[in-house]
Amino acid sequence: MDFSSDTSAPAHPLVIEAIAAANIGNAPSYGGDAIHLRVRKLLTDALATDDFDVWLCSSGTASNALALSVMCPPTGAILCHAEAHIERDERGAPEFFTGGGKLRLLPGDDAKIEAQALRSALAGIDRSFVHETPADVLSLTNLTESGTAYSAAQIAEYAARAQQAGLTVHLDGARLANALVSTGASLAEMSWKAGVDVLTLGLTKTGAIGCEMIILFGEMRRKYAELQARAKRSGHMPAKMRFLAAQAEALFEDDLWLQLAGQANARASELAAHLTAHPGAELAYPVQGNEVFAVLPDGLAQRLDDNGAKFYPWPGGSHRFVCSWQTSSEQIKRFASALKTT
Amino acid sequence: MDFSSDTSAPAHPLVIEAIAAANIGNAPSYGGDAIHLRVRKLLTDALATDDFDVWLCSSGTASNALALSVMCPPTGAILCHAEAHIERDERGAPEFFTGGGKLRLLPGDDAKIEAQALRSALAGIDRSFVHETPADVLSLTNLTESGTAYSAAQIAEYAARAQQAGLTVHLDGARLANALVSTGASLAEMSWKAGVDVLTLGLTKTGAIGCEMIILFGEMRRKYAELQARAKRSGHMPAKMRFLAAQAEALFEDDLWLQLAGQANARASELAAHLTAHPGAELAYPVQGNEVFAVLPDGLAQRLDDNGAKFYPWPGGSHRFVCSWQTSSEQIKRFASALKTT
Amino acid sequence: MDFSSDTSAPAHPLVIEAIAAANIGNAPSYGGDAIHLRVRKLLTDALATDDFDVWLCSSGTASNALALSVMCPPTGAILCHAEAHIERDERGAPEFFTGGGKLRLLPGDDAKIEAQALRSALAGIDRSFVHETPADVLSLTNLTESGTAYSAAQIAEYAARAQQAGLTVHLDGARLANALVSTGASLAEMSWKAGVDVLTLGLTKTGAIGCEMIILFGEMRRKYAELQARAKRSGHMPAKMRFLAAQAEALFEDDLWLQLAGQANARASELAAHLTAHPGAELAYPVQGNEVFAVLPDGLAQRLDDNGAKFYPWPGGSHRFVCSWQTSSEQIKRFASALKTT
Amino acid sequence: MDFSSDTSAPAHPLVIEAIAAANIGNAPSYGGDAIHLRVRKLLTDALATDDFDVWLCSSGTASNALALSVMCPPTGAILCHAEAHIERDERGAPEFFTGGGKLRLLPGDDAKIEAQALRSALAGIDRSFVHETPADVLSLTNLTESGTAYSAAQIAEYAARAQQAGLTVHLDGARLANALVSTGASLAEMSWKAGVDVLTLGLTKTGAIGCEMIILFGEMRRKYAELQARAKRSGHMPAKMRFLAAQAEALFEDDLWLQLAGQANARASELAAHLTAHPGAELAYPVQGNEVFAVLPDGLAQRLDDNGAKFYPWPGGSHRFVCSWQTSSEQIKRFASALKTT
Repeated sequence: MDFSSDTSAPAHPLVIEAIAAANIGNAPSYGGDAIHLRVRKLLTDALATDDFDVWLCSSGTASNALALSVMCPPTGAILCHAEAHIERDERGAPEFFTGGGKLRLLPGDDAKIEAQALRSALAGIDRSFVHETPADVLSLTNLTESGTAYSAAQIAEYAARAQQAGLTVHLDGARLANALVSTGASLAEMSWKAGVDVLTLGLTKTGAIGCEMIILFGEMRRKYAELQARAKRSGHMPAKMRFLAAQAEALFEDDLWLQLAGQANARASELAAHLTAHPGAELAYPVQGNEVFAVLPDGLAQRLDDNGAKFYPWPGGSHRFVCSWQTSSEQIKRFASALKTT
Repeated sequence: MDFSSDTSAPAHPLVIEAIAAANIGNAPSYGGDAIHLRVRKLLTDALATDDFDVWLCSSGTASNALALSVMCPPTGAILCHAEAHIERDERGAPEFFTGGGKLRLLPGDDAKIEAQALRSALAGIDRSFVHETPADVLSLTNLTESGTAYSAAQIAEYAARAQQAGLTVHLDGARLANALVSTGASLAEMSWKAGVDVLTLGLTKTGAIGCEMIILFGEMRRKYAELQARAKRSGHMPAKMRFLAAQAEALFEDDLWLQLAGQANARASELAAHLTAHPGAELAYPVQGNEVFAVLPDGLAQRLDDNGAKFYPWPGGSHRFVCSWQTSSEQIKRFASALKTT
Repeated sequence: MDFSSDTSAPAHPLVIEAIAAANIGNAPSYGGDAIHLRVRKLLTDALATDDFDVWLCSSGTASNALALSVMCPPTGAILCHAEAHIERDERGAPEFFTGGGKLRLLPGDDAKIEAQALRSALAGIDRSFVHETPADVLSLTNLTESGTAYSAAQIAEYAARAQQAGLTVHLDGARLANALVSTGASLAEMSWKAGVDVLTLGLTKTGAIGCEMIILFGEMRRKYAELQARAKRSGHMPAKMRFLAAQAEALFEDDLWLQLAGQANARASELAAHLTAHPGAELAYPVQGNEVFAVLPDGLAQRLDDNGAKFYPWPGGSHRFVCSWQTSSEQIKRFASALKTT
Repeated sequence: MDFSSDTSAPAHPLVIEAIAAANIGNAPSYGGDAIHLRVRKLLTDALATDDFDVWLCSSGTASNALALSVMCPPTGAILCHAEAHIERDERGAPEFFTGGGKLRLLPGDDAKIEAQALRSALAGIDRSFVHETPADVLSLTNLTESGTAYSAAQIAEYAARAQQAGLTVHLDGARLANALVSTGASLAEMSWKAGVDVLTLGLTKTGAIGCEMIILFGEMRRKYAELQARAKRSGHMPAKMRFLAAQAEALFEDDLWLQLAGQANARASELAAHLTAHPGAELAYPVQGNEVFAVLPDGLAQRLDDNGAKFYPWPGGSHRFVCSWQTSSEQIKRFASALKTT
């Protein structure tokens, strides 16, 4: 009953198999291998376009920071939610990679940027006033840090507003698969069709050992060489890149990544149902992915812990329960029992 | 007959097995797992001390740059050979991670720093002259970029001189195993006993998928928290760190890393013997590890290439042949045949 | 009737005289001149201590950023008010000079940090949680961006809290003279006696051409060499530093800087009195220095402008009027007349 | 007899007068004043073009670093002479402002880049090889650090080669006036007509208190907004910029800057003649400006010092004597006497 994080889960067995299968014979270093070509093909199908460039990276933090570093100059700023992962949990990686760019924080319930706050921020930009740092990028997170999902339509609306104001749009999709399954949107609808310029697509939390994709769409493709140089310079151009590609291939083949996210989401829904059935427990945010945030009645957290459930207290007073591809219905049932016996 | 690079080789099967074995059940993220503890134990034995802290990293470039970033302030400089990997092949990673520190380049044959040049550079440091950037770090590379090895005694001598001048000492050991085998020195003798303050110990070229160690000795251990913060901030704190630890464990168990390096060195010696027996071919540098640099008579490179041998031309007019753990005696024999038939 | 900014004012004539007087004969470059010694003496008297080091700088933005760069590591954060000059008006200078440190914004009326918000921020720091950026510095501004003043006692209270939590304390005193006059505190009481570790003391807005001081107290003095190196590296070590020192000497001699600030404050009080006597006009913030922020009734701003008054609209709907050392009672009277005729 | 540096000299009296004259009434902050317009007019005449943008800056180090920061990305490199001021005497300012760009050092006698070394460096650039940092900028210095001058033709030749290889060209003209006078070239011939993209034109060493110009020509003008943002962010946008403009105006009016440089050069020639007439003394480099580098016979330096002459020993064994606008023929005669009596 480990609900501490989807990063505590093992990788999916097919990922391990793919790594072992990739380990045969010599292969060109630094992305020149055959598996990369196959990944590109799979991604082209999934995105329903080939107007993109992609870079594989083992780290989610680096993927976001690298993406932002080709979007935001050192003298610029990035609009994001006050709770965004890039603000709260990456130890200043965006500032480091951009060379000192600023994050400008916007409010909003459920860790989603409020439309009015976005409008005000965009309206307040004065690029001729040199003393103030103007926003150059809007960064959205889907799933958000509260486990909620933006719809593709919301992203499209926000992206359109931002682009009218001269910004480009970044989507931090560390748990994008969960958002896709939960909203029913396709990868294309949630990314380039919604106006996303650069997508960080995470697979680590979905079932990889460590594999994320930085995808540049359309006009942003002219930044690809710069992205590679920055990847090299930050230690994110591993010599044996075929092992990153192997993970990606395994998860995109037959949409395994979406299937695994679907399982995790389903378990989270079940877990939420059990929790909300418990007297005095209630959800802190809507469950729209694989994460459940609940406010628990006094003593419940301790008793669940005593019964072997692992999960974390969360800022604001709730507790977070995360389901992964490996969370089984059996585990949920045991959790439900633990809830009743406590 | 692929002698293009030891990074083109696959990982050793035991590394893959270890990764698969690590993929069972949930484990604490970010280095809190059981395998990390076992790696520390293995390393304590190999180093014959426990006065160290270690951080695992998938990238050699990042490992060097992270190490240097806790040694050299933005206002300082790093002494290294003009051919050093940190100068030539890391796209400015040291400058990026240190926040704009400078590399000061020293000459010397065989990619080894000349003793006199080091003495002059150290003597010329004037820390009271604010306009000039003083050196704070000496960075040595073993194996060097020319495939040659410093002896432990040479490193100790250079380190002592540098420390007398107020510098700390970094050792870039991307191919340290090859240098250890070739010189007969122990890991302890080549690192802390020789005065090395921070060691970057590479396993990727020895047989891992991607695994390096940043090891802080003695006084430098007080920088460990800063190192972790910088690792996080640069995307080198993977959530599922157990898979890095698994690689390290597999390679340290029963000194597998040294055994593999020994094999690679032996094949390089054989290859060098065949080459030097060829009329008109001669070594560019002494062979003291798993790399052979040879000046080839006209047309030979092309004919070897036509016969299926893969290797690279090198700046300065020679060609580089690299052997890995997987290079077989059979391959060397085929290369010898190719040499004769050409 | 120019109330646009105290930076639009000329320098005080004695400052120009001092510059002319300094322009005789050769003098050692880079701070080694006799005037620097005299400035140190004047400052020692004004501070009632000699446990400090001081660096002169022509720029307020650079002075703040240099100060913060020796207080906050790249992996750290600075607590400041959401309206602070370092956040709003310095184009990311703190992020640039610190190498990517973060600003963490705190709320509070009148551009003063709310005590409760500071307590929460300090209580929330967890230095063991590597993913989040911990605060290392508290930066206060006096006068604030709303023209209000912290008392020395308030600063002492905040500084004590911050230091208990392991932070050091920076005071941005671009208009410190105005705050000293307005609160009646001495320079010593408002700085080191209140626990300030590093003070940016501005003279530009008080009557210099361009002269600020970065003053390190007590323990922070060990950062002086680093501060100088960073000053050099950022172009803030002018060859002919004697001209900076000359400005400082002129303004500290006989407390001219405080006298000039007193005049400016007095004019601001008069201006505020006239404004608040006007039907429908009211102060946006208390007037505690040389700045008046007023909410004006419809049409008044335009009519004042038509009558030759210069001032700026301010975010939030008010207008800002700034008095300088050169603002005369005559100008205030003309402004009062303009008010009546409109 | 102070030959220590042209930065030890006072400013020219007309510069001080101009500053006093500028100190009347309020003026728009941050470069919006009338004097700036007049400086632009003077500069347009001097440059024989108006296809430029100019930014005034009090610091030579910052002017170079700001110029380079809009020319060289963090992932790029700057070619310069191994003795260049940007490499030796700016404490890593270029690395700081560019965000970690690299300097690549080229050899050459008399501190001038050797043509062959430049050709090799340019030929060796491989922009497709991501691991190595390619050169993006060629930075020349005129006068060089050895007091020698490039002719306009040499600069044009080097610039053409660099631009063919995709680089832009920076000219560090901290002592440009001296080079113009010495070579007879016009400002236009030595800058944009020779292919210079960005010129750092120094006036501080010529007779200002502290005033340099960063001039962007032609295509580089699209970087002007970025230059301003970077100037702001680094503290090089002083509020009272009119005082910078006043210095520039005084020195450009009637070509005062060239006249002063001519005087300084003439004194240096006289000094050199006296020195070379002394038995055993000889020039280390040709005298082509206001600096004399001489190798002195044993004991001479000490005896000159005993007789009141101030000058510095220089790396390489010579001594440097610098003449400024204020160096008088009288001083040179006294120096000649001192030479004879010693």
